[in-house]
Amino acid sequence: VRTEAFFPDLPGYVTLRCDFHMHTVFSDGLVWPTVRAEEAWCEGYDAIAITEHLEYPRKTDLVITNHQRAHDLARPTAEALGLLLVPGTELTRGEPPGHWNLLFLTNLNVIPTNDHRAALRAACAQGAFVFWNHPAWKQTNQIAKWYDEQQEALTNGWLHGLEVVNGTDYDPIVHQWCLDRQLTLLGNSDVHGPVGLDYAYPPGSRRPMTLVFARERSLAAIHEALQQRRTAICFSNSLFGEAQFLRPLFERSIEVRTPVLTIAPRGRGVLQVHNRCAVDFVLKARGKVAGIPFPERLTLYAGKTVAVDIRPAATALKSVPEVRLPYEARNLWTAPDETLPVEIVFTLKPEEAKRSP
Amino acid sequence: VRTEAFFPDLPGYVTLRCDFHMHTVFSDGLVWPTVRAEEAWCEGYDAIAITEHLEYPRKTDLVITNHQRAHDLARPTAEALGLLLVPGTELTRGEPPGHWNLLFLTNLNVIPTNDHRAALRAACAQGAFVFWNHPAWKQTNQIAKWYDEQQEALTNGWLHGLEVVNGTDYDPIVHQWCLDRQLTLLGNSDVHGPVGLDYAYPPGSRRPMTLVFARERSLAAIHEALQQRRTAICFSNSLFGEAQFLRPLFERSIEVRTPVLTIAPRGRGVLQVHNRCAVDFVLKARGKVAGIPFPERLTLYAGKTVAVDIRPAATALKSVPEVRLPYEARNLWTAPDETLPVEIVFTLKPEEAKRSP
Amino acid sequence: VRTEAFFPDLPGYVTLRCDFHMHTVFSDGLVWPTVRAEEAWCEGYDAIAITEHLEYPRKTDLVITNHQRAHDLARPTAEALGLLLVPGTELTRGEPPGHWNLLFLTNLNVIPTNDHRAALRAACAQGAFVFWNHPAWKQTNQIAKWYDEQQEALTNGWLHGLEVVNGTDYDPIVHQWCLDRQLTLLGNSDVHGPVGLDYAYPPGSRRPMTLVFARERSLAAIHEALQQRRTAICFSNSLFGEAQFLRPLFERSIEVRTPVLTIAPRGRGVLQVHNRCAVDFVLKARGKVAGIPFPERLTLYAGKTVAVDIRPAATALKSVPEVRLPYEARNLWTAPDETLPVEIVFTLKPEEAKRSP
Amino acid sequence: VRTEAFFPDLPGYVTLRCDFHMHTVFSDGLVWPTVRAEEAWCEGYDAIAITEHLEYPRKTDLVITNHQRAHDLARPTAEALGLLLVPGTELTRGEPPGHWNLLFLTNLNVIPTNDHRAALRAACAQGAFVFWNHPAWKQTNQIAKWYDEQQEALTNGWLHGLEVVNGTDYDPIVHQWCLDRQLTLLGNSDVHGPVGLDYAYPPGSRRPMTLVFARERSLAAIHEALQQRRTAICFSNSLFGEAQFLRPLFERSIEVRTPVLTIAPRGRGVLQVHNRCAVDFVLKARGKVAGIPFPERLTLYAGKTVAVDIRPAATALKSVPEVRLPYEARNLWTAPDETLPVEIVFTLKPEEAKRSP
Repeated sequence: VRTEAFFPDLPGYVTLRCDFHMHTVFSDGLVWPTVRAEEAWCEGYDAIAITEHLEYPRKTDLVITNHQRAHDLARPTAEALGLLLVPGTELTRGEPPGHWNLLFLTNLNVIPTNDHRAALRAACAQGAFVFWNHPAWKQTNQIAKWYDEQQEALTNGWLHGLEVVNGTDYDPIVHQWCLDRQLTLLGNSDVHGPVGLDYAYPPGSRRPMTLVFARERSLAAIHEALQQRRTAICFSNSLFGEAQFLRPLFERSIEVRTPVLTIAPRGRGVLQVHNRCAVDFVLKARGKVAGIPFPERLTLYAGKTVAVDIRPAATALKSVPEVRLPYEARNLWTAPDETLPVEIVFTLKPEEAKRSP
Repeated sequence: VRTEAFFPDLPGYVTLRCDFHMHTVFSDGLVWPTVRAEEAWCEGYDAIAITEHLEYPRKTDLVITNHQRAHDLARPTAEALGLLLVPGTELTRGEPPGHWNLLFLTNLNVIPTNDHRAALRAACAQGAFVFWNHPAWKQTNQIAKWYDEQQEALTNGWLHGLEVVNGTDYDPIVHQWCLDRQLTLLGNSDVHGPVGLDYAYPPGSRRPMTLVFARERSLAAIHEALQQRRTAICFSNSLFGEAQFLRPLFERSIEVRTPVLTIAPRGRGVLQVHNRCAVDFVLKARGKVAGIPFPERLTLYAGKTVAVDIRPAATALKSVPEVRLPYEARNLWTAPDETLPVEIVFTLKPEEAKRSP
Repeated sequence: VRTEAFFPDLPGYVTLRCDFHMHTVFSDGLVWPTVRAEEAWCEGYDAIAITEHLEYPRKTDLVITNHQRAHDLARPTAEALGLLLVPGTELTRGEPPGHWNLLFLTNLNVIPTNDHRAALRAACAQGAFVFWNHPAWKQTNQIAKWYDEQQEALTNGWLHGLEVVNGTDYDPIVHQWCLDRQLTLLGNSDVHGPVGLDYAYPPGSRRPMTLVFARERSLAAIHEALQQRRTAICFSNSLFGEAQFLRPLFERSIEVRTPVLTIAPRGRGVLQVHNRCAVDFVLKARGKVAGIPFPERLTLYAGKTVAVDIRPAATALKSVPEVRLPYEARNLWTAPDETLPVEIVFTLKPEEAKRSP
Repeated sequence: VRTEAFFPDLPGYVTLRCDFHMHTVFSDGLVWPTVRAEEAWCEGYDAIAITEHLEYPRKTDLVITNHQRAHDLARPTAEALGLLLVPGTELTRGEPPGHWNLLFLTNLNVIPTNDHRAALRAACAQGAFVFWNHPAWKQTNQIAKWYDEQQEALTNGWLHGLEVVNGTDYDPIVHQWCLDRQLTLLGNSDVHGPVGLDYAYPPGSRRPMTLVFARERSLAAIHEALQQRRTAICFSNSLFGEAQFLRPLFERSIEVRTPVLTIAPRGRGVLQVHNRCAVDFVLKARGKVAGIPFPERLTLYAGKTVAVDIRPAATALKSVPEVRLPYEARNLWTAPDETLPVEIVFTLKPEEAKRSP
């Protein structure tokens, strides 16, 4: 049974739900590769990558001669379910340079494992999309540090994205690095056990998701979108991404069910706003509208319609045909310290004659 | 916050979610009339009727001089929320003739309370839609009994529908009466306390709902649809109604996400079926398809997509382009002992050449 | 069906779950008085007070000659359900002095309604317990203000408690006033509609609760406990109260299921901690234990057991028989800016000989 | 985080929650062995057995030289979590004789795999507890068939129990066989994928559980209890077992919170019954009590308290001090067509004098 988290498509793009970092028993994960495809299908994903550690396969019980074995085992299940399966692996070194995911490799088995520079060069020669995983991991006080190795990779064109969210951790420093260095934002689970076990608590937990805004639903289109940095991250009822993506995502999620509010003098109207998105939008007023009081705080629950009492002053009722309620979406992050300004728009119409009872 | 139970519109009709039987403190209910409008809005209703007992208002603490008072008090809230509020009352006599709901009255206060015949005649003179409530109530062993009084009303054109579901009880005898006598099916809550309190257990309970297939979203259109018997009942994850309504409701709820299944010889395809409806469809096979095994039992969960493994025999793969899986929808009742035959339709396509790895 | 939120009894006291502020149709509430008793029973309360506005009964439809009418109507239901029903009313003036709840009155009908001083004096002559409701309500920027009227009442012995939590709002200023002026902490719903409707969102919401630590389960014991300030507030998965109450409440909620952890050298033990309380305890480390790393953050979920990996250094394993993990319970508030220090205690025991396989 | 399903201990026995049939990647399962221990701990189990297919290990990717490898890998996790891990394996032949689980083996690796008789004999020589799995599996129309091979094993003392519940299927034929042949009832998951994935739908699903009534919480005590047939099965909100176990389990789960109901003449009392058990008890009246009407149907929800209105006739109030409401627990099955008669007991006490208001 598949449950889909709804996100609207953006103008010119389909919105694909992706997780580009996970493991199976073919390195240090705890499930068979097909489980990753089944889990992802049930959770409503469009695409995943199984990214085994290239350097340290679990040795004692498994015979691993082919680094793409987990991918190959999962593929028939993924294909049958219509799930896109991105080939990939995790380059696993000490810090620096740390761990890197290499996606869209054409041949995992020729990536050198002794030298990270050689590995990145070989991967990029195959057209790989490369991102640095969980930059704060094992760093002093869990604070992400940009090493010379990262700078070198960036300069050489070997680094294309950063894991802003890994598992249950969002890293604002890494978010800012993406903005400053024009890198792609990624939010992945890095899940090792069964998803249902690793994300059981608190109740209602979901693993992080990379939203990819692709020209079509295909591997090639995901590759292109990642290269062009058309992503956002959905994590813990927040979205992280550029305003150019988050704004239309918000606007296409919202339906004002009462576009025209007919209100009697000194009367009241009820504005009804529906949110189709899988994320609750947590709004906070960022200004006033003369003569039209509106709630300082408003949560547009996912999949629900909320009612807002509107009691315009008599003057406003006459003079303000189109109302644009100015809000800040407090859980739509365009930068580590910046959230998205949004508007809820409707039209006021004075009631002309009292309807008889 | 409003949560809507989704039901698709039918060809030529909008599907409206209604409850035509409930009480407030203005007779023997336990909530103020506005609460009925707010509850109904939150639960995703389109229309309700507050139907106070005409004969026995709560006397000690409330002064009731106007039988339409509850309706009038609820109306501003209903209007502001965009909820259609049907005027009505409950004629409350001993058995026979029992209790009757009179809807779409133009003046409740002139309905006589001393003689049920006079009351029904007066109501019908106002164009009322009249139905008999909970026919089994207070009858011997709770078995519905058709009295002379009912026959008289039917003959005189004073009886137009029957409450097949009241509160937590479905009555198959009354269902059959509707089919035999061409009466409208109704399923109502008859709620007296707050809905959240009266329908708290078992968890996930919802009050019964009358689905009205109306030409438009208006009181007049509901009136016309009730008169024309265009209704169905949603109760406890079952639907009750004529096949002419339940079939398109099923068909418009179902989306085969894999209309064409491309399968290799001796291979497997995964049929994906999405159910947009608020009701789980509980299917049981009612036959076989030569060369194409399919599950004997299949539940299409509300709002979910289910996956069905299809492994056609080699002969079937070649010869059966369009597959119609024959099922019985075990919770879509067209009569007390009859459920709706349905089909899940898709196309088989033999895979031509093995794709390379 | 009744669902009880579990809170342990404290040494010498039973812990009673109470709500001392709510309304019905007999003033500006929206439910019949019996509903308040049924709701409270279902939600696991031990005691409630129906506190109608003394000054403004709903006039048009209800005839109210007796201010205790709502209480009297609810009493048979409360008694049959074993729910303690505290007599009370809400004195309802402009600001200042604002709204005050008067509990344990012997005769509501003789409280003067024209002069708040006369009313408070009359109430106290009846032995009433008096608290000031929602002090920030209608104040500038919703900031609570201590008026001369409050000071006068305090000086005269007419004021015994403050509503630190009202509905969905906790007020830290009022919390501090309670500490500074030795007043009783109260957290009440002030609910007007059906509880299920007013506390529907966000999902999982519960109305605030005053925990009363009483000598026995009786009205008299509640009265005495309120006078002696033996209360705490449960609101939105937080507890507010003095350390003398919150500490034993925490300690009696926690069960270390592995009081002795037998660990091999360089080995691992799993500490299991069960939380019987209805509140999740959100812990943050407030120090280190030499040689014994433990999680910086730990949530002890309500009704669940959590597992904590303990990998002591070899030296610690030998030398630290009793371990006291120092935590701060981040949602147990002893003052507006102060949370409760707690400990999780267990014993380490070095494994003596390797058990054979 | 561990969630425990509560079942009371029985007189002289502790009630242990067990699952004796499951798989990992070391045969045809889909998770690493440690996952089985973690899942079981989270779901509140006391004991499990990992029972890999003895004859067909997954060959291509795993090197399996030791049939006890899965058990050995899971053991450190199980021990750290305090979970009892029963050694076992699944003998996997065609039908007949089908699949058999061998528990409490001391050495899995010496069980012959070529001859089922030799295997059973060798297992029993090790003191194994042996049960036949899912007897209806692969049989004509899924109807369990007792073959000569089963009879031979029974005669030889090689067969001690039967899997009455396997995964999502209860088999009444097998239940009756247990009663007729004095065999132990077992209900196991036979889970292959992650439990959270295999038991996701319908919502609220749980895998079946064998309740073992053991003298203490130890492997040896489980072994003894299985041999002595002291088990019951919990499956899909039903319990299956002998009356000698189900009756005290019911009685120790039920708490009448109002043991004495004081009722005025022509008055009403509210009987309050709490159910501590993890299973809802679904009761149906199996008789009448003169002068004391009581509900025909009553569900005692798990962990909740239900209220039952009692309005005794005047004569009954005087003459019936102890009331024993006769019910049938419709979901406590002592045989395939027999449910457990139970009683709810309380005392009536006429109210002596009307209490003053």
